[in-house]
Amino acid sequence: MFNFTPTTASIPPANNTLRLKPLPNALPNYQPLSPLAFILRAALIYPEKIALIHTDVPFPVAYNFATWAQRIQNLAYALIKFGIKPGDSVAILAPNCPMIADAHHGVIAARAIVTPINTRLKPSEVAYILDHSQAKLLLVDHEYLHLVEGTTVPMIISKDTGRMDDPYEVFLAEGRYFSKEAGWQGLDTEPDENASAVLCYTSGTTGRPKGVITSLRGNYLAALANAFEGRMDRHSTYLWILPMFHAAGWTFPYANVFSFATQVTLRTVNYTHIWNHILRSGVTHYCAAPTVQIGIVNDPQAQQPKQSVTAIIAGAAPTAHLIAELEKKGIKPVHFPSAIRETYGPFTRNYEQESWGPLSLDDRARLMARQGHAFATAEEVRVVYQQENESDPLQDVPRDGKTMGEIITRGNIVMKEYFRDPDATRKAFAGGSFHSGDLAVMHADGSVAIMDRSKDIIISGGEVRLYPNLAGSTLTYPESMQNASSLAIEQELVTHPHVLEASVVARPHVKWGERPMAFVVLHPQHAASWHGRHQTFASELKAHAKTRLPGFACPEWVEVVPELPKTSTGKILKTELRKIVAKL
Amino acid sequence: MFNFTPTTASIPPANNTLRLKPLPNALPNYQPLSPLAFILRAALIYPEKIALIHTDVPFPVAYNFATWAQRIQNLAYALIKFGIKPGDSVAILAPNCPMIADAHHGVIAARAIVTPINTRLKPSEVAYILDHSQAKLLLVDHEYLHLVEGTTVPMIISKDTGRMDDPYEVFLAEGRYFSKEAGWQGLDTEPDENASAVLCYTSGTTGRPKGVITSLRGNYLAALANAFEGRMDRHSTYLWILPMFHAAGWTFPYANVFSFATQVTLRTVNYTHIWNHILRSGVTHYCAAPTVQIGIVNDPQAQQPKQSVTAIIAGAAPTAHLIAELEKKGIKPVHFPSAIRETYGPFTRNYEQESWGPLSLDDRARLMARQGHAFATAEEVRVVYQQENESDPLQDVPRDGKTMGEIITRGNIVMKEYFRDPDATRKAFAGGSFHSGDLAVMHADGSVAIMDRSKDIIISGGEVRLYPNLAGSTLTYPESMQNASSLAIEQELVTHPHVLEASVVARPHVKWGERPMAFVVLHPQHAASWHGRHQTFASELKAHAKTRLPGFACPEWVEVVPELPKTSTGKILKTELRKIVAKL
Repeated sequence: MFNFTPTTASIPPANNTLRLKPLPNALPNYQPLSPLAFILRAALIYPEKIALIHTDVPFPVAYNFATWAQRIQNLAYALIKFGIKPGDSVAILAPNCPMIADAHHGVIAARAIVTPINTRLKPSEVAYILDHSQAKLLLVDHEYLHLVEGTTVPMIISKDTGRMDDPYEVFLAEGRYFSKEAGWQGLDTEPDENASAVLCYTSGTTGRPKGVITSLRGNYLAALANAFEGRMDRHSTYLWILPMFHAAGWTFPYANVFSFATQVTLRTVNYTHIWNHILRSGVTHYCAAPTVQIGIVNDPQAQQPKQSVTAIIAGAAPTAHLIAELEKKGIKPVHFPSAIRETYGPFTRNYEQESWGPLSLDDRARLMARQGHAFATAEEVRVVYQQENESDPLQDVPRDGKTMGEIITRGNIVMKEYFRDPDATRKAFAGGSFHSGDLAVMHADGSVAIMDRSKDIIISGGEVRLYPNLAGSTLTYPESMQNASSLAIEQELVTHPHVLEASVVARPHVKWGERPMAFVVLHPQHAASWHGRHQTFASELKAHAKTRLPGFACPEWVEVVPELPKTSTGKILKTELRKIVAKL
Repeated sequence: MFNFTPTTASIPPANNTLRLKPLPNALPNYQPLSPLAFILRAALIYPEKIALIHTDVPFPVAYNFATWAQRIQNLAYALIKFGIKPGDSVAILAPNCPMIADAHHGVIAARAIVTPINTRLKPSEVAYILDHSQAKLLLVDHEYLHLVEGTTVPMIISKDTGRMDDPYEVFLAEGRYFSKEAGWQGLDTEPDENASAVLCYTSGTTGRPKGVITSLRGNYLAALANAFEGRMDRHSTYLWILPMFHAAGWTFPYANVFSFATQVTLRTVNYTHIWNHILRSGVTHYCAAPTVQIGIVNDPQAQQPKQSVTAIIAGAAPTAHLIAELEKKGIKPVHFPSAIRETYGPFTRNYEQESWGPLSLDDRARLMARQGHAFATAEEVRVVYQQENESDPLQDVPRDGKTMGEIITRGNIVMKEYFRDPDATRKAFAGGSFHSGDLAVMHADGSVAIMDRSKDIIISGGEVRLYPNLAGSTLTYPESMQNASSLAIEQELVTHPHVLEASVVARPHVKWGERPMAFVVLHPQHAASWHGRHQTFASELKAHAKTRLPGFACPEWVEVVPELPKTSTGKILKTELRKIVAKL
């Protein structure tokens, strides 16, 4: 089917001991939690099973768990030989490919910090992250060298070939040679389960990106939760659509290995490749943000797969419409929303109820679009507001499905800190919980439903008052639903069969202060029929909205656009839409 | 279908806060691991789902998660009102029933130690455990009062009715009243995840029973592993055949709740009730030792269930024959062997391989009967022997499938200690690992296969030498397979279609030192045909054995018996068989 040609340095010796070096004076009944345990177990129990497949490239490769574990070990030794010390940051600038998958395990095997960098950033932003993270080494994919011209950080370049002459493979081979075949027993085990493991930067749409530090313990527990909640096991095949650099792949680099799943890496979000793998590589699981999911279900190649496929939706709130569309394609949507870097990715899950069974697909999808409850190994999720007196504790909103507050959480899958930024850490952890910046309501069943990011709310009439404790900034707090949730409006706009995607932002209004403006992308099948008649469509869509939304929430303006501005991870850039609005 | 009449004290108030009281100065990113989190999540997310069903009694009850969580809270308050302090031991003497299920959660909610006592013990043994555990209170089922006559430990008696006038229900109602509706926020959260959670006593076939103490962290991690490895979820229904008092139900009292599974409690191992529940209550999972599994598959009511049923086999090594029989009945056997109190129950699992697919059921069952590899959250499992020089570290046996050594393990799912027994703790933890006392070989694939308990090996020729480091005693170590593994012999005897069960022990032999003697129970369908001709059958079975075993391993003697002596948990009492042999 494809080449399977690991370099000689990747082939493990017959007497390979797949066990971490015992800690000095280790207690018989305590082992620091570390996701590094997963690759060792997988290589021991399923050595011949395919761990990693990378095919849509000129030099396809596949590694079984035994070989992959050896490559990870080689990487750890190579880093140590290079001079990486425990606690050092090792940056990775790469799309989904074996190198970044290796790094998630190999870097922590060297007791260093995995620091993946978003490949869609500008050179100046990459430079800022390299500097701020104090990266000692950069593992960089050949396609992204232009982003790091002139950097003083030493680099190892991967041509993503897996061949002997690839500089990354030479680096691994040097690691193997340097190891003198001491194997895993030659690598020191990290004694502290709270040691820093991964450093991911926020996209920094406002201000400088912040570095989110997560721990070994947190990654271990979040990975277990993702594997359990996703019902993954050794029969699973996970397709890497979500970039691994994005919040370190929501701990799926570890959850997949814990489950003994096969991972398929895709360098780009290419719908032909995606459908090819879903229909022909037996993919059972993938993660993607809602906008990418929209692209997947609307692709002309979409058809019902033979196997059961679970689509893990996170990164932003999906519309009920999208959930229904996925189900129609035979893909089981699981909503692990509220996925943010600061919580290792998902920290809530929408838990389906038996009582939803008899509901219509539309009604059920509306319930499934809620963010739900705290995840398996997460602790409490609360929706709170600040009381009159700022020194009073945060108050939970009533469970009425309409009073908005901010989602806060705490527990083992909350980040350690913002790296080298005690001020931001202190603000984010105000009152002993992590402030997500998501505005939400709590329903009677205790489930949360995000209404908006705090910065996206539209103050369209209604009372407002100051809500000073939202994460890191002073914002107005909407007292009632008279203030329109942009997400609630988007949910309804996309129910129009000719709308592919919609994004709503606030636009100043003389009478109301603010009113909603919608940017919509037409469905490819219907775009031609509205060609030259976008104003007519705008009127039709406004009429459609009036049948489904209260007056104050109906968009005052509708603009048909060919596409929406998005981040590399598929999040809609409302900041760009606001810039457009500002010029109107 | 059945009564569902919780007492008024069991009905939660509408504004119930299902959240632990925050620890003073709690970090936003750290929460001590505790299985208490599970019942709160279940009651929050699936309040109406049936948590616990107890039907095969005069007063059947069923509780949903909301009600059950309230009962657990009531129990915690009742214990505190009674005077139970953090770290106190609360003993439970009961069969599988709501009280013992409640206690696994309610006692830790009061920060006390769950101390379940085996109901098959003699009064003197129960008295010893009550005394040794320093139990401050005993929750006792009315049927077992005769075991605790004259005890000075205060008692709360359950009549297992769930009715208002049941003394246990009165106790719970007092707890509710005492709580003044302060709810979960009125109970102090245990700040130390390594705090003692459960105290279980070994059966003490040799010497006094030992008290095995496990921690909150260990129970949390072991429960996650059991839920993940068992592929449990909210659609699961777990049948309590294994007594909950046995190694605290292998953490399934917690794993079931973590999974949001429904639990069905059975007071006794009654095959009519078992098959009734498998066929009519939608049971998807149960745990049982091999001898009980034999009873289940051979029961005349056995038939293929409609739903998928996973039988978790642990507690003793199953024969390949049993595994094949379960599969024939449409029950999926999962072998979580090496389940001992000191490891929270299972710590290895037999991981099936793709390559076993084409094998015959018999061959596959042989591979599945192996104990396999370390469990999801367990650390390393090794098979070791003592080198010549006792100060040298323990040596791993070669992966040859024939050199025997002792299984040792370490990590987060190894007990804290033997309660009030530092000497036994020190011995069990010699060299920094827990010594299981199981003799095993390691196969080329790194999987372990138990050959015998160290005391069950038959020294039938071959070299022997002293192996002084086996847990707690000086034993001879068999250098080669010339020493017959009683389990290997039993594996072959039960392949005879007329044999229901077999147990083999050593019997002194003038020439060979020891030779195997087999005690066999005939299959009910064939017992009549051999009536009065047991000697003939013995000859036939010896001939059968000769075709499958090397000469030194063939039983020299075969005794047909109506039944085998067993512990309450279904483990065959080889000590009793040895007493019979001693008198021959």
